[in-house]
Amino acid sequence: MNINKQTLELGVKPSCIRNVFSYAKQRALEIGEENVFDYSLGNPSVAPPDEINQTVKELLDKESSVLIHGYTMSPGDMNVRKIVAENINERFNQNLTFKNIYMTCGAAASLTITLKAILNAGEEVIAFAPFFPEYSVFTENAGAKLVVSEPEEGTLYVDLKDFESRINKNTRAVIINSPNNPSGVVYPEYIIKGVCEILNKKQKEYGETIYLICDEPYRELVYDDLKVPYIMDYYDNSFVCYSFSKALSLPGERIGYIATNPKMDYVDEVFFSICGAGRSLGYVCAPSLFQQVIAKNINVKVDVNVYKENRDILYNALLSYGYTCVHPDGAFYLLVKTFGDTAIEFCETAKKFELMLVPCDDFCLDGYVRLAYCCDKQKIINSLPAFEKLAKYYKK
Amino acid sequence: MNINKQTLELGVKPSCIRNVFSYAKQRALEIGEENVFDYSLGNPSVAPPDEINQTVKELLDKESSVLIHGYTMSPGDMNVRKIVAENINERFNQNLTFKNIYMTCGAAASLTITLKAILNAGEEVIAFAPFFPEYSVFTENAGAKLVVSEPEEGTLYVDLKDFESRINKNTRAVIINSPNNPSGVVYPEYIIKGVCEILNKKQKEYGETIYLICDEPYRELVYDDLKVPYIMDYYDNSFVCYSFSKALSLPGERIGYIATNPKMDYVDEVFFSICGAGRSLGYVCAPSLFQQVIAKNINVKVDVNVYKENRDILYNALLSYGYTCVHPDGAFYLLVKTFGDTAIEFCETAKKFELMLVPCDDFCLDGYVRLAYCCDKQKIINSLPAFEKLAKYYKK
Repeated sequence: MNINKQTLELGVKPSCIRNVFSYAKQRALEIGEENVFDYSLGNPSVAPPDEINQTVKELLDKESSVLIHGYTMSPGDMNVRKIVAENINERFNQNLTFKNIYMTCGAAASLTITLKAILNAGEEVIAFAPFFPEYSVFTENAGAKLVVSEPEEGTLYVDLKDFESRINKNTRAVIINSPNNPSGVVYPEYIIKGVCEILNKKQKEYGETIYLICDEPYRELVYDDLKVPYIMDYYDNSFVCYSFSKALSLPGERIGYIATNPKMDYVDEVFFSICGAGRSLGYVCAPSLFQQVIAKNINVKVDVNVYKENRDILYNALLSYGYTCVHPDGAFYLLVKTFGDTAIEFCETAKKFELMLVPCDDFCLDGYVRLAYCCDKQKIINSLPAFEKLAKYYKK
Repeated sequence: MNINKQTLELGVKPSCIRNVFSYAKQRALEIGEENVFDYSLGNPSVAPPDEINQTVKELLDKESSVLIHGYTMSPGDMNVRKIVAENINERFNQNLTFKNIYMTCGAAASLTITLKAILNAGEEVIAFAPFFPEYSVFTENAGAKLVVSEPEEGTLYVDLKDFESRINKNTRAVIINSPNNPSGVVYPEYIIKGVCEILNKKQKEYGETIYLICDEPYRELVYDDLKVPYIMDYYDNSFVCYSFSKALSLPGERIGYIATNPKMDYVDEVFFSICGAGRSLGYVCAPSLFQQVIAKNINVKVDVNVYKENRDILYNALLSYGYTCVHPDGAFYLLVKTFGDTAIEFCETAKKFELMLVPCDDFCLDGYVRLAYCCDKQKIINSLPAFEKLAKYYKK
């Protein structure tokens, strides 16, 4: 069989999330959708703000169809890049220009392109557990190796000592994801400062650049007025990999960006390398209509209260049934400890109560399951008796 | 400087097409757009059929916004894949199912994903000159090497003897592009048969699979009722890499597909490998709204007569001025021989007459320039005196 064995393996072994999702779909056909409680997929249940579809229609009516559906330059339409840069400057008091913005087909594209642009074979990337499983796939695609830094117990914050011990002369990049998938944790400022201090020290020690990549699809989904530190204030060699998928409920439209910190070493060369990486990965340009839609709705926000309500209902109920949960400050995920079982066993048991949960093993975290609560509130309420029964089952 | 040198090089050295395009834009600012004759970019000038924008609006009005903008499964929405498969079956008398269709972000994505799925380090891919320069970029991204087969003089058809001499035990794939960019040539059936016979012989000789990848973004743009052979009738181990960019004038929307021949060796494993390759390259799914738009307009055609008219005006005029041209049967490109100069020198001279042409050096063809005539008819008519002057300049 003359094919690539690594991509075959990747394709055959579907992601654990998609596995649970497929089972849930199947089960819904058998017993009715109303009887299945699917917490597997991070597909927003909140519709995009009305402005989005309205803008699409206006653009189709008012602009030339040839332009609106035509190619843009590969880093994106110049005007769109300007608007994105100015928006970052206003919100986070930065000094970006369009030269710091490369529009992408969503967060996954932002990450693959950035990693490919900076990494060489044999280099290492550190990710903080728990993390999105595709980080290792994207890192390996760039010929490098992913190294896992274990979290602080209980809080699941970065363990700074563990982190420092993982850095060596081959470390070229660090990926940080806050608000975090799968934990919903927002790292407090002292953690960010700690990470950056260690990186600055290590850069000096080795005389090499170590990049910090902030994967931020959940930046806008934060509760209780918490502030998420903007990385460019803390570390020069930093990227922000952003997506509008979750914030504007547009995950299928594949639209996001890479922002380079203007204070980065050789920032112009890095940007050229991003353009080269995009080319070699087959990204011609980000979808053109949605580039314009984003530019016209850069200040539009999704209503996070819907998710906050879901969080509160679920979190409080689960605590009352005796579960141990990590308190989520952002995103739309809740981590729950299993009752002693492995996460895979626990999820199998949960299926008996029609609860579709994702084991966190693929997120590099043992003994936890992830609940994506970006679903309908009533669904959550309806699922509570099943959670109560599951807890009782384990207490017997 | 700690970045990837190859992607930097790719990013710094912009494509020759984009170079000419940028110069044309600049020049238009200086002397007015009406005085610049830009033949650089293959960006369709014909608007998409009216049905496209109408369908977008209908989908936004009638379908759930959560679904229409939500993730699809990574190979694409099941129903969309079915519709695409059935359309291929109807048009070309095949037996595809949704299992043979993987929806992509356009032709470049189709090619990068396919190449990554089948290639291993050290293997070789053959392309027939002249060809789209990114073929070598995409092949190198998969860790393999591109080998060039020289064309027959004059016709620019595949030279079957040359082709056979390029095949060795490391040859894993062949890319064929007809209607061809940059020549506009459609390879006649005897050429396709010849290529496939050689490949079948060589597969037996080496006991290995050699894949044939048909890059077909221009399939619908064919003039004079010419038939373009459908590769699955001629060769089992074949892929069709398709895009709706040119046929429906949607190049910026990034929508296309990979079709696998159901008769291919280990076709299920190959499809899994495609899924794995898509994952590792950061393609989560093809843009969801436009997947639905395509499904609802699968039989809609662009009016090729606009391009045919352009071709006839340009081709006939250039012949009458003494140019040697390759007769284009499809796509919207015309190849013109230089008057003795290198193509780069010739293009520099043409700039003096405000004619923006692309040298074919990067397409692996010396002594020719490419004219993309997917522009406004009046613009072509207005440019003719400049072509006449350019010819006279060389005849002095």
